[in-house]
Amino acid sequence: MKALQYREIGAPPELVTVPDPEPGPGQVLLKVSAAGVCHSDIAVMSWPESEFPYRLPLTLGHEGAGTIAALGDGVTGVAIGDSVAVYGPWGCGRCAPCAAGKENYCVRATELGIFPPGLGAPGAIAEYLIVDDSRHLEPLDGLDPVRAVPLTDAGLTPYHAIKRSLPKLGPGSTAVVIGAGGLGHVAIQLLRAVSPARVVAMDISDDKLQLARAVGAHETVTSDAKAADRVRELTGGRGATAVFDFVGAEPTVATAGACVAMEGDVTIVGIGGGTLPVGFGVMPFEVTVTAPYWGSRGELREVLDLARAGAVDVHVETFGMDEAPLAYERLHAGKIDGRAVILPNG
Amino acid sequence: MKALQYREIGAPPELVTVPDPEPGPGQVLLKVSAAGVCHSDIAVMSWPESEFPYRLPLTLGHEGAGTIAALGDGVTGVAIGDSVAVYGPWGCGRCAPCAAGKENYCVRATELGIFPPGLGAPGAIAEYLIVDDSRHLEPLDGLDPVRAVPLTDAGLTPYHAIKRSLPKLGPGSTAVVIGAGGLGHVAIQLLRAVSPARVVAMDISDDKLQLARAVGAHETVTSDAKAADRVRELTGGRGATAVFDFVGAEPTVATAGACVAMEGDVTIVGIGGGTLPVGFGVMPFEVTVTAPYWGSRGELREVLDLARAGAVDVHVETFGMDEAPLAYERLHAGKIDGRAVILPNG
Amino acid sequence: MKALQYREIGAPPELVTVPDPEPGPGQVLLKVSAAGVCHSDIAVMSWPESEFPYRLPLTLGHEGAGTIAALGDGVTGVAIGDSVAVYGPWGCGRCAPCAAGKENYCVRATELGIFPPGLGAPGAIAEYLIVDDSRHLEPLDGLDPVRAVPLTDAGLTPYHAIKRSLPKLGPGSTAVVIGAGGLGHVAIQLLRAVSPARVVAMDISDDKLQLARAVGAHETVTSDAKAADRVRELTGGRGATAVFDFVGAEPTVATAGACVAMEGDVTIVGIGGGTLPVGFGVMPFEVTVTAPYWGSRGELREVLDLARAGAVDVHVETFGMDEAPLAYERLHAGKIDGRAVILPNG
Amino acid sequence: MKALQYREIGAPPELVTVPDPEPGPGQVLLKVSAAGVCHSDIAVMSWPESEFPYRLPLTLGHEGAGTIAALGDGVTGVAIGDSVAVYGPWGCGRCAPCAAGKENYCVRATELGIFPPGLGAPGAIAEYLIVDDSRHLEPLDGLDPVRAVPLTDAGLTPYHAIKRSLPKLGPGSTAVVIGAGGLGHVAIQLLRAVSPARVVAMDISDDKLQLARAVGAHETVTSDAKAADRVRELTGGRGATAVFDFVGAEPTVATAGACVAMEGDVTIVGIGGGTLPVGFGVMPFEVTVTAPYWGSRGELREVLDLARAGAVDVHVETFGMDEAPLAYERLHAGKIDGRAVILPNG
Repeated sequence: MKALQYREIGAPPELVTVPDPEPGPGQVLLKVSAAGVCHSDIAVMSWPESEFPYRLPLTLGHEGAGTIAALGDGVTGVAIGDSVAVYGPWGCGRCAPCAAGKENYCVRATELGIFPPGLGAPGAIAEYLIVDDSRHLEPLDGLDPVRAVPLTDAGLTPYHAIKRSLPKLGPGSTAVVIGAGGLGHVAIQLLRAVSPARVVAMDISDDKLQLARAVGAHETVTSDAKAADRVRELTGGRGATAVFDFVGAEPTVATAGACVAMEGDVTIVGIGGGTLPVGFGVMPFEVTVTAPYWGSRGELREVLDLARAGAVDVHVETFGMDEAPLAYERLHAGKIDGRAVILPNG
Repeated sequence: MKALQYREIGAPPELVTVPDPEPGPGQVLLKVSAAGVCHSDIAVMSWPESEFPYRLPLTLGHEGAGTIAALGDGVTGVAIGDSVAVYGPWGCGRCAPCAAGKENYCVRATELGIFPPGLGAPGAIAEYLIVDDSRHLEPLDGLDPVRAVPLTDAGLTPYHAIKRSLPKLGPGSTAVVIGAGGLGHVAIQLLRAVSPARVVAMDISDDKLQLARAVGAHETVTSDAKAADRVRELTGGRGATAVFDFVGAEPTVATAGACVAMEGDVTIVGIGGGTLPVGFGVMPFEVTVTAPYWGSRGELREVLDLARAGAVDVHVETFGMDEAPLAYERLHAGKIDGRAVILPNG
Repeated sequence: MKALQYREIGAPPELVTVPDPEPGPGQVLLKVSAAGVCHSDIAVMSWPESEFPYRLPLTLGHEGAGTIAALGDGVTGVAIGDSVAVYGPWGCGRCAPCAAGKENYCVRATELGIFPPGLGAPGAIAEYLIVDDSRHLEPLDGLDPVRAVPLTDAGLTPYHAIKRSLPKLGPGSTAVVIGAGGLGHVAIQLLRAVSPARVVAMDISDDKLQLARAVGAHETVTSDAKAADRVRELTGGRGATAVFDFVGAEPTVATAGACVAMEGDVTIVGIGGGTLPVGFGVMPFEVTVTAPYWGSRGELREVLDLARAGAVDVHVETFGMDEAPLAYERLHAGKIDGRAVILPNG
Repeated sequence: MKALQYREIGAPPELVTVPDPEPGPGQVLLKVSAAGVCHSDIAVMSWPESEFPYRLPLTLGHEGAGTIAALGDGVTGVAIGDSVAVYGPWGCGRCAPCAAGKENYCVRATELGIFPPGLGAPGAIAEYLIVDDSRHLEPLDGLDPVRAVPLTDAGLTPYHAIKRSLPKLGPGSTAVVIGAGGLGHVAIQLLRAVSPARVVAMDISDDKLQLARAVGAHETVTSDAKAADRVRELTGGRGATAVFDFVGAEPTVATAGACVAMEGDVTIVGIGGGTLPVGFGVMPFEVTVTAPYWGSRGELREVLDLARAGAVDVHVETFGMDEAPLAYERLHAGKIDGRAVILPNG
């Protein structure tokens, strides 16, 4: 089958032909309908050899959706032909976090050599994908796999971040979304769907702020040195109940810390390398700051439920399998509007 | 191998020889170290044929612990020789409750024909037990399987009930445990270990109340018509923050409703057939009443953690495999003190 | 000043002239802008003398809003002229529930002789109202007192009920509202504003169901013997995540119990006298049933925040002070559409 | 009456005679039984004039307990002679945090000029103390005011910090307490009383570690460059579920960040000026870091409940009123063992 592989440190990904995979006991073979292209792949391919944690060649793609093509021995509860999305952050399934569905925080994955597809295990940008266990498949139940596939990361990651703050995001609260791009524009929709919070979007690009308003932001603020002051004005001086930073660079985390309210939450999702110092007196009392990773199995189901209810919609640009390298080029050049999705069998 | 089977409606269980089982793909074969004998088995064996939900013959035993003897194809993350406890309420592993580890509330188990061992599937009172998936095994990590095996039900069930009320069981709170027997005497220990609540034990038997005090109850109350008044006296008129009824008969649920405080919890665990009516004005404001079932995978792990910390200890009476029918006879006659445990390979 | 008083057991309320009240130390005098007329007043006036808990004559009205006309000695933090809503379920302010703002569950109110205005203390259907403490005043901050006043009970009571279930009312969940009248039609709006739950309204009246749809119900079901089955159909057999019964009669609580899902909530708000029996095996596992009362100070603030955000709107019919007896007549006759509001100074 | 006042920037506190205070409307006059001496007073008295936020002279003492000597007009629900502890972080009583009892996070206190006793308002190190409102008094109900008074800050502050992490501190969890002094040795007791967590105490002083063990720490670790490694060893490599840093200096917050587990909490209570940077990849996933302040009214009640249950005991050294300046000298010199308490009427 065809697969898009990262084969050599520093080189662009290549479209290659590899043997068709076959599912072992307990595994499931998916015929891939759609695979998302993610900024973090660009980051991964920028790492030097000394820090590269996976084996090469690596088939890319950690956002996948497809139809079940074959079941390994012993697989029950799913059927050939089922249209499913892949839960990506695979864990051992047995440790305490895994037993709560939080396989993104598996405490044994490293020890057992378990990796997500596209981030260590063969990924979804291929005609077929081996999924290690049927528990990592969520039924699409009528959702279009092309529109749904980015939800497995670009939907799940902001949703997980939002869930942490949800008890605080009641009536009268304010949520700030920094970065109205791939994850941010989904976050705005998720916030509107699950909370009564007023949503303030922040970005350096006017186009992005326009998109933010179009998908439901109540207010938009240009991300500059005055942005935190503007948020304080919009909130009668109190500051934001929760700030979600999908950029995570030094200036944005500083803005997050400067505009959050007492008892508020700052969640750093973006991998821009910024850090926010926490200590007595440096921010309002009891601001909590954290940097989470991806989301849980139950949360993926909930994101798909929201999509089925029409509450979240990802802007998607599709590419055929032969155009997969091009998709990465364009993403790298900042030319993708919304999310690039590859159709390996399209 | 030898197995204790319920073979005919109304007849006592029989010790029989059946073929040694072999694990299919994804399954695990346990050499059983210890299997608990539970009151609910007595209830199951009292059901008339028309209501009996399982196929006969049925190997009994829904509390099991053992060492891994063989792995089916595709099983990873566990090893032959591991000493483990079995999580009993098996579910599909994929639905929303299962994805949170609450397989006791699997929404697809009935549809998929999934049953717990000993309650539909072949049980643990046998030399070997097939476990459907390695996720249903919790490592004992040094715990004695004989002392630990009752924790899989007689520990997990009260623990799950307690966890629901834990946010209310802070300083100054009072927990009432009705029925200081198999589950109740464990509940008292669990409450002492995980909360600062004052624990009041209630029973009709002085011996049970003495046991209750020995395992940590602060107060004991004879379960009679004045019991609720006594709880109100002990709580300055307020009533109990949470009441756990391990009997569940009409008089005990009535007492529970009569002694609970405003905003308190009544949890009916016992299957004694009693019901407590809820409506405006019939109990203090916002008392919540519920009847849960067993517990989650994460909760079993936590119960075992408590045992490893020395915080909970079950009184156990052991029987060899040949004495298994006798164990049931004695349990039926009310002659078991604590929990009967069978050692199929002992 | 003019006041509407219940003066004699069984007699209709009378418009009378009473001395103008003056605020004592710590108290606040309100010039009443609007006072809501509530079904529970009808219930109160139907009680026989032997069960009547308050002193007569009683000035009616437990929903009040007004402007601050005078401050008693020592009152700070509020100013004459402030437009405020009255938090009605007054408590001692110091016990554990009061310290969390849940004065509706004050444990000392009875002992200290503290009563809500209109339900023991002089009520809001008068030109002036004494409020015992400034903490029982919430700023209206621009809200119209006439539209806002019913929120102090008809908004706060369903909001409090909904808050209990909010953690369960995530994506994919279903909330059933039984009774789409005064409280129910507000509940539907609140559910839409604070959760992504699908809202199913149930009523015996087609007009009420039409109103339910107009204010946001996704589905409507006629409240009859098949209603529970219809909810199961709408939920793929699972049942409702939460059921809010604003009628609380025997048939509606039975329907609530019959249509709720495993781990779901049944909240009985209506004072129709029905009770739902809870015990092992009579409903799906771990359904919790409760009957709450009114709401907390913080919750009133949140309801007003939702109104300010345009998320909840109460249908109101206004009456002058001289028409106040007529408002009760019409309410008693079932002729009020939405909520009757009296304008004592209008 | 006699009062200990901070009268001049940089000068030691002075014992002076001031007029006896009289309670205004709504206020309560306490005859002070005991007043705690706190490290933060030392910090306050070290601030330069340009940063000093209060008016001078300032009567010191933010930990107070006493008997009610007189009631201002309009005060109800308390009686002369009641023995009470003072809740110190006074707020407006009406804003959203105050309505939940979290007056420590009042959003209007600064605007309204509200200060805690001893930190802006006249404090408890005096024969008499004016308390602004009876809601700031918690009944001692039999507790010795001398032993109880430090609980109003040295108990409440760690308790509030612990409550945030309590849902995570279940069976199998580990809590690290950095700094086993005034607050830390109370924190250890509180953790033991309200959770099953294993408690690891960390300090640079062997004496303090010995005290830590005496009051219930399971393990002790010398606070040095290897301390974080030692915690990882003690936790099988996972790290601590929660770290409470009562020092808050650069080396201790760094240790906290180095020894916390994935999804764990770091709470910086100490005002040692250290900050911990949070961002993607710098600590395990989803560690949350925060710096809270004091605690809520309900939490003070709970701390006193724990003391009444015998679960927490503060080491106390008492001083007469004339020795009050000496108490501060000794505290400044690091010569107080446990907590210094002044008896203004002793």
